Amino acid sequence: MYISKSSSVVLLVSFLCLVVLPVKSSNGCGYDACNLGDPNKLNVHIVPHTHDDVGWLKTVDQYYYGARNNIQHAGVQYILDSVIHSLEENPDRRFIYVEIAFFWRWWNQQTNDTRSKVKNFVNQGRLEFISGGWCMNDEASTHYNSIIDQHSLGAEFLRDQFGECARPKIGWQIDPFGHSREQASLFAQMGFDGLFFGRADYQDIDRRTQTKTRELIWKASANLDRRSWLFTGVLPNGYSPPGSFCYDIFCDDPPIMDDPRLHDYNVPERVETFIKAAHDEASSYATNHIIMTMGSDFQYENANQWFKNLDKLMKYVNAQQTNGSDVNVFYSTPSCYLYALNKVGRTWTSKTDDFFPYAHHPRGFWTGYFTSRPALKRYERLSNNILQVTRQLNAFSKTNLRGSIFPLNEAMGIAQHHDAVSGTEKQEVAFDYAMRLSQGIDVAVDVINKAYDKILPLDSKTPPSAPQFLCQLANISECLPIEGQDRFTLILWNPTVHTISHYVRVPVTKDYTVRDPSGHAIVAEMIPVSESTQRIPGRKSFALNQLVFKTILPALGFSTYYFEIKATENNNNNEKQVLVTHNSECILQNEYLRVEIDCQGNLNKITNLKKKIVVPFSNQGFYWYGSYPGNNSGSEFQASGAYIFRPISSDPEPVSSKRSITCVKGQNFQSAIILFNNWASQEISLYDDAKMVEVEWTVGPIPVYDNIGKEIILRYDTDIQSDSKFYTDANGREVLERIRDYRPTWNYSKVEPVSGNYYPINSRIWIKDSNRQLTVLTDRSEGGASIQDGSIEIMLHRRTLYDDALGVSEPLNETAFDAGLVVRGKHLLIIESPTSSALYHRVASQRFYMNPLATYALPPLSYADYSTTYRQAWSALQTDLPLNVHLLTFDQIDTNKYLIRVENYFELHEDDTYSHPVIVDLQKLFQSQGVISDIAEMILTANLRITDMKRLEWVTTDNRSSKIDVKKDLSLKDLNILLNPMEIRTFLVTVE
Amino acid sequence: MYISKSSSVVLLVSFLCLVVLPVKSSNGCGYDACNLGDPNKLNVHIVPHTHDDVGWLKTVDQYYYGARNNIQHAGVQYILDSVIHSLEENPDRRFIYVEIAFFWRWWNQQTNDTRSKVKNFVNQGRLEFISGGWCMNDEASTHYNSIIDQHSLGAEFLRDQFGECARPKIGWQIDPFGHSREQASLFAQMGFDGLFFGRADYQDIDRRTQTKTRELIWKASANLDRRSWLFTGVLPNGYSPPGSFCYDIFCDDPPIMDDPRLHDYNVPERVETFIKAAHDEASSYATNHIIMTMGSDFQYENANQWFKNLDKLMKYVNAQQTNGSDVNVFYSTPSCYLYALNKVGRTWTSKTDDFFPYAHHPRGFWTGYFTSRPALKRYERLSNNILQVTRQLNAFSKTNLRGSIFPLNEAMGIAQHHDAVSGTEKQEVAFDYAMRLSQGIDVAVDVINKAYDKILPLDSKTPPSAPQFLCQLANISECLPIEGQDRFTLILWNPTVHTISHYVRVPVTKDYTVRDPSGHAIVAEMIPVSESTQRIPGRKSFALNQLVFKTILPALGFSTYYFEIKATENNNNNEKQVLVTHNSECILQNEYLRVEIDCQGNLNKITNLKKKIVVPFSNQGFYWYGSYPGNNSGSEFQASGAYIFRPISSDPEPVSSKRSITCVKGQNFQSAIILFNNWASQEISLYDDAKMVEVEWTVGPIPVYDNIGKEIILRYDTDIQSDSKFYTDANGREVLERIRDYRPTWNYSKVEPVSGNYYPINSRIWIKDSNRQLTVLTDRSEGGASIQDGSIEIMLHRRTLYDDALGVSEPLNETAFDAGLVVRGKHLLIIESPTSSALYHRVASQRFYMNPLATYALPPLSYADYSTTYRQAWSALQTDLPLNVHLLTFDQIDTNKYLIRVENYFELHEDDTYSHPVIVDLQKLFQSQGVISDIAEMILTANLRITDMKRLEWVTTDNRSSKIDVKKDLSLKDLNILLNPMEIRTFLVTVE
Repeated sequence: MYISKSSSVVLLVSFLCLVVLPVKSSNGCGYDACNLGDPNKLNVHIVPHTHDDVGWLKTVDQYYYGARNNIQHAGVQYILDSVIHSLEENPDRRFIYVEIAFFWRWWNQQTNDTRSKVKNFVNQGRLEFISGGWCMNDEASTHYNSIIDQHSLGAEFLRDQFGECARPKIGWQIDPFGHSREQASLFAQMGFDGLFFGRADYQDIDRRTQTKTRELIWKASANLDRRSWLFTGVLPNGYSPPGSFCYDIFCDDPPIMDDPRLHDYNVPERVETFIKAAHDEASSYATNHIIMTMGSDFQYENANQWFKNLDKLMKYVNAQQTNGSDVNVFYSTPSCYLYALNKVGRTWTSKTDDFFPYAHHPRGFWTGYFTSRPALKRYERLSNNILQVTRQLNAFSKTNLRGSIFPLNEAMGIAQHHDAVSGTEKQEVAFDYAMRLSQGIDVAVDVINKAYDKILPLDSKTPPSAPQFLCQLANISECLPIEGQDRFTLILWNPTVHTISHYVRVPVTKDYTVRDPSGHAIVAEMIPVSESTQRIPGRKSFALNQLVFKTILPALGFSTYYFEIKATENNNNNEKQVLVTHNSECILQNEYLRVEIDCQGNLNKITNLKKKIVVPFSNQGFYWYGSYPGNNSGSEFQASGAYIFRPISSDPEPVSSKRSITCVKGQNFQSAIILFNNWASQEISLYDDAKMVEVEWTVGPIPVYDNIGKEIILRYDTDIQSDSKFYTDANGREVLERIRDYRPTWNYSKVEPVSGNYYPINSRIWIKDSNRQLTVLTDRSEGGASIQDGSIEIMLHRRTLYDDALGVSEPLNETAFDAGLVVRGKHLLIIESPTSSALYHRVASQRFYMNPLATYALPPLSYADYSTTYRQAWSALQTDLPLNVHLLTFDQIDTNKYLIRVENYFELHEDDTYSHPVIVDLQKLFQSQGVISDIAEMILTANLRITDMKRLEWVTTDNRSSKIDVKKDLSLKDLNILLNPMEIRTFLVTVE
Repeated sequence: MYISKSSSVVLLVSFLCLVVLPVKSSNGCGYDACNLGDPNKLNVHIVPHTHDDVGWLKTVDQYYYGARNNIQHAGVQYILDSVIHSLEENPDRRFIYVEIAFFWRWWNQQTNDTRSKVKNFVNQGRLEFISGGWCMNDEASTHYNSIIDQHSLGAEFLRDQFGECARPKIGWQIDPFGHSREQASLFAQMGFDGLFFGRADYQDIDRRTQTKTRELIWKASANLDRRSWLFTGVLPNGYSPPGSFCYDIFCDDPPIMDDPRLHDYNVPERVETFIKAAHDEASSYATNHIIMTMGSDFQYENANQWFKNLDKLMKYVNAQQTNGSDVNVFYSTPSCYLYALNKVGRTWTSKTDDFFPYAHHPRGFWTGYFTSRPALKRYERLSNNILQVTRQLNAFSKTNLRGSIFPLNEAMGIAQHHDAVSGTEKQEVAFDYAMRLSQGIDVAVDVINKAYDKILPLDSKTPPSAPQFLCQLANISECLPIEGQDRFTLILWNPTVHTISHYVRVPVTKDYTVRDPSGHAIVAEMIPVSESTQRIPGRKSFALNQLVFKTILPALGFSTYYFEIKATENNNNNEKQVLVTHNSECILQNEYLRVEIDCQGNLNKITNLKKKIVVPFSNQGFYWYGSYPGNNSGSEFQASGAYIFRPISSDPEPVSSKRSITCVKGQNFQSAIILFNNWASQEISLYDDAKMVEVEWTVGPIPVYDNIGKEIILRYDTDIQSDSKFYTDANGREVLERIRDYRPTWNYSKVEPVSGNYYPINSRIWIKDSNRQLTVLTDRSEGGASIQDGSIEIMLHRRTLYDDALGVSEPLNETAFDAGLVVRGKHLLIIESPTSSALYHRVASQRFYMNPLATYALPPLSYADYSTTYRQAWSALQTDLPLNVHLLTFDQIDTNKYLIRVENYFELHEDDTYSHPVIVDLQKLFQSQGVISDIAEMILTANLRITDMKRLEWVTTDNRSSKIDVKKDLSLKDLNILLNPMEIRTFLVTVE
């Protein structure tokens, strides 16, 4: 309720200011404000910082206020109050701040006086925003669209309130549990000069420490070359201070007791210990600069305690220089540390793989969270779908209600946090994230209605249409508002730039005639809702059937389908067309594919009929790993939990020995519903003109009556000769090759044969041999692996009974309706040749996350009246854009101003036709908005003109420089822009 | 080592400023700065405060710095930093501060800029010093001399640094465990207008809550009438905030979440709950003003958290007035709350008894700490003796080294803390207190030497004498530096204003001729050191004998005794005079007293021969109570511990069934050494002209092999018909009547028959019948009672194996030299008629705590040379002052300036001769210093001229007003001042 007002003054102002390019600061923020130390000394960069989780054990607002401190003592409002005061007290002090979700909350409550102080600190480089996203996003379960959005949200706020001095230049992913190459690539495209993080595999760290290669150049894209290179550093001590130098209220380390008149004077001992700590750290790093991260989780609630002691420590340590000490210590920031490293002028090793999976000890693989909380992971992905469609509707209808999209945008920003969509938060907090998304969606639906109110009426005098509403439980065949209605409409907005055909299932309690936008009654088959769906706990619907039909949707546009109740006598007519058999062989077949399932419910074979590719399955179905129980008192006793996946055995158990199968065949639609047991089932569907097979899985309540936690996988075992290799995407974009029991950059010693081979799947995983490729697309982030050649396994759901002792202090034991949580999702299977697969998985994965948005309404008008009053189809485009173009962002930021991102979403060399540069005429996108009168290409986060982006130059050990030419600005005369493979381009557009 | 420099700039400056009388503030501090609320509303005085123990679980310096936070999170430096900043942020905010030991440490480290800010806050009444002692002293185990000193130390600092606006006006004893009437009386004499405390007996509080008499007029002296009256309030909630309104970093209460855009908005609920809390509290108090103590132990380390939430809470609560709420809430101070009560203009009930003992539940009597850590309690008393003598020597020698007395003064100030001398601190902290005293004494010995260097030489060209040193282990017959020496001197400084005869025991390894100041060899008897003394763990001395002799010491002066080794042949001579028998009857007798001990070591009878008073003893000796073991999970499971005395049984066990006795009889000295077992013994001594019997007890190591903690008492069972009554002193001054199983002000329900009858004994306890009185004087504070008529029991030592769960988290289990701690002490027994007892116990108790100070030296001179070079006797007085006059303080504060306190230490009606006003000519005291050229009478703490003292007027329910006439200033023409019984008068004197 309160959230509906949250389009705060600050962000409303910010929208207006977005296109006012910031004035460059001339008073020494950024690198100009850096102390570069003494070239003849060991320079210790002291970086005071706080790590403020945007929700974890408490909700983001509880953290902000410091509520529920019985759960965890943490109050961000006090941290910011306190740090600002401490900066006032000594001009040498510096601080960095990361999470704009919190800073924004705080900023909204400050007086002008305080704001002015803070601005001064920012302009002096003393308060530095680092990373500057709404949160410090997870890297394993996030989608690139939302990573960009959440960073843009923070960047916009910073640019608006502070200008260029506040522009983040450094990635600061100190806590996320493994690091994605795409994240680094995106950071490079945000104009960042480097990235620091705290967590990497313990074996990797060991080797890097020995070889002094904890700092390196990450070549973060196989497509973007030097534009994706990013200096990357593994911090010395996670993100904590060196031992015994923590001065936070949470720490018990000795303060600097420097009054010789009092007892316990300890300056000489403290100085000696610090100098030793500096030398110890320096022995692992390549230069005479080292960084000490002086802070940790929610620290600096009383910043004075930190700074007062650091002031003294640094004074006394530097005083030892007169006695020959080589240690030179000063307040710094990660930027300044980075800049000092850059100025050292040496070459750096590089790498092209990523930092997954992360293990902190031999039994501690953080691969469970790739799947943890699958329902939240799906809801987050669905929310993004709604957010993007809402933005498009707002923009194309010129409704200019960006402020009302903010709550969903903000909720999505929060949900990207590394203890949010990751599934590693406490249950209560997971509920809060979901509630925020839900509340954001509620407000977004208002925008959707306002937009349709402008688009639907055929003339301007027409009264608004009946309100559009979402049916968010359609995945369990429930849409209560339409139940029993005599008529209703379904509008589908297609957010892609291509016309698509799209099958819809509408749960109904009656039979309806369905009319397409041109008024024709279309084939809509009445398919029974499966008994397993009917039994899903909490399902309130009385719908026992669903109408399944095919729709054709224009690019960036909508089609309306009008439902009218049928006369009773017609009912039987339809049903005759659908054949249902039980426990018989079931062949699903269309002109492209043939799916063979035997009478015991085993998927035996899929054949790509056109390409004559056959993939037989030796097994396909659900298995479970027992979650390792343990007290976490040592590596051997590591339990499987929210973060960690540690199976008791490497051989998963099938969930059942028998299956039952129901085969449903209609005109456009065929499916096999395979029940494994009373908590695991799948529906394998093939639509009429589909080139891929849909597998809808339903898992839960996972039984734990045997006191064993269980982790459920869906396994696809084929005879593909995959030769230890499999392929997974990073954040929905580029795909990385994975090799079983192998790490590209170090000599990997295997301990965990299963969990050590798990990788995040954000959108797809494949295996292949010379002429066959099985690709599985997912509807959310999941963990997966190929433990045997020819096999893909994807973890769907988890229920553990032990906490894994990484802080969350709860087993991952999701329940709902007094039972284990039931989760449902989809895989799309593509059987193609390796050379032709990209065409299908690239296109399908974009459409999977940017699905047509279905809204329903109950118009009081008959079809005849409706069709003469309201527009039933519309497209923003006159023609589709090329197939390899994706419209990533279309956001109206003010009356005539838009932020857009367009993307070539194919990688190099994966498709003969589409893995090439493509040209897009931007004006075509804006044909319904007007004529482009001004355009500026921006960096990815839209907070700097790309012509102003100047990144630091680094040189790799093979003497390649990272330097790239500065881009030229776009001319209005030629709005045809080129998109290279995997290139995203960002524009601020003004139309007349 | 460091402590020797601690005569900090601040206090040195302060000494110079002491006589600069402060300018009265005109800018509204004090009562002028008070918000008196709205007469038609319920006015809630919000009092932000911190309670900073001057040592408890950590040492004072650890608390100051925030070191050892693993023991307890607490750092006073941050509290003060933080509060000052928070006061800057909002001019409505107020804060009170109590413990000057901490404030002084902090102030020393502040910049002028910060000092100036703080002064402004003080001058605006926003930072109010309350109580303003060096610490918040214990009330049960402290001596009035040291209470006055510690308050004067704080008051002097405040007056010097801040002037009149910082003068404390309110006693704030929120934590001490029971409240002494003398403390209240002293507060009144310090010019205080009231006293608030947090702890009182739960039965007392219940009754007062029901009758709305938690606030009253305490008539705190039986002698001083209205000058001792003190408004006294029992705080509503100990000293904590009302439930759910604690906003400290240590608390988990909900913050005020007042941004409606965020989740968990809670303003309405918080406001409603607060208003209810205010009404609840108001129902226990008499007026429409109530106080809420917003703080607790070491709170406000992050003051912002407190104030930010209080600001909001108060704003929203007061906003409800527009909706009819009667609650009016504002920042206030205890002074302002008191002033508001005063302005209400009502009458108040009164009481004349005290608030001992304190119980917080039926089994929880805080009577153990009356005795806990008896060695520390004695060391503290001895340290005061040394401090006072050092001051006198410094003053009478005009050495003007007050700065070097400061460390001992400061250590004494700290030792008065309610977890210091009380014995309720952790063992490590007890060691620290002792170390501080020891270090203070070491520096004081320098002053003593400088003083004697001025006093001893007969002419000014004489080189300084050999250094004087203390023999602090003389109580176990150890003085290593003189062992084996051929010659040494013993100087005894008599700090009383009366000539005294005083017996000395000097442990020796050889026999010596002892010469008195006139050169005569005196009778010095060689008495064997008892075997039990020789066996005391840690005793390093080889001395097997002690020389016992009588000295005559001039008032405020010294006598020197010169020791020369005897020729060997003389040794036997001496020994012959001493008769030693074993296990035979032992009658000790002089002209005044006869002490009869049978051959089994039983003290059977003491007879006052002159008065013909006979007191037979049915039993006299050591008993032990088993310490109740318990997990403290409820009243029934309360353990006996550092605070609590809870015996397993009400019948103590005798420590042995048999005793052995050694009877020693010399010329001047007779004693019976009675061994009860190998850990308990007593030596009953009678000196030649003594009018009382000395009992030296030795207890320890207390055995706990049976896993039972033990509390050791010495019991004196007589046939005195004491009729349930006994008498104990308060802080060494006035004596209160105690009645067994009875409380004067409420209907007492007895649960604990022993510990519920224990009272603090700071100097004496007696029982009496119509014509006999047995008075026992103690050398330190102890707990005691009369559990049976005719019986006095005094607890000497305790060793418990359980913590009593009141925070200290350690059993009281003192050890030394790998065994339980051995403690030795003295009782003096007086057998007199009730009407004649005061003469003896008053005089003796003053001499007991102001004992002659023995210093030794090893002069290289023969007696002939020594006696012609050095003065061997000296007195500051030409004649003794009257017997009922005590010189409480004689302190040189600058070259010609002195602070003195003189006292009539007799109570009214206790002695026919001395319980009357007495006149002292102050010039007599200064005859060796010069002519008094200026004099000002001051309030007790010397921080205000008594002519400026204006206390608030209160009226009791019997319509008696507290108003007293303002004293007139003293004229130089008549320096004869009058001292009424129990009156202390304080003067600043300048001499020419």
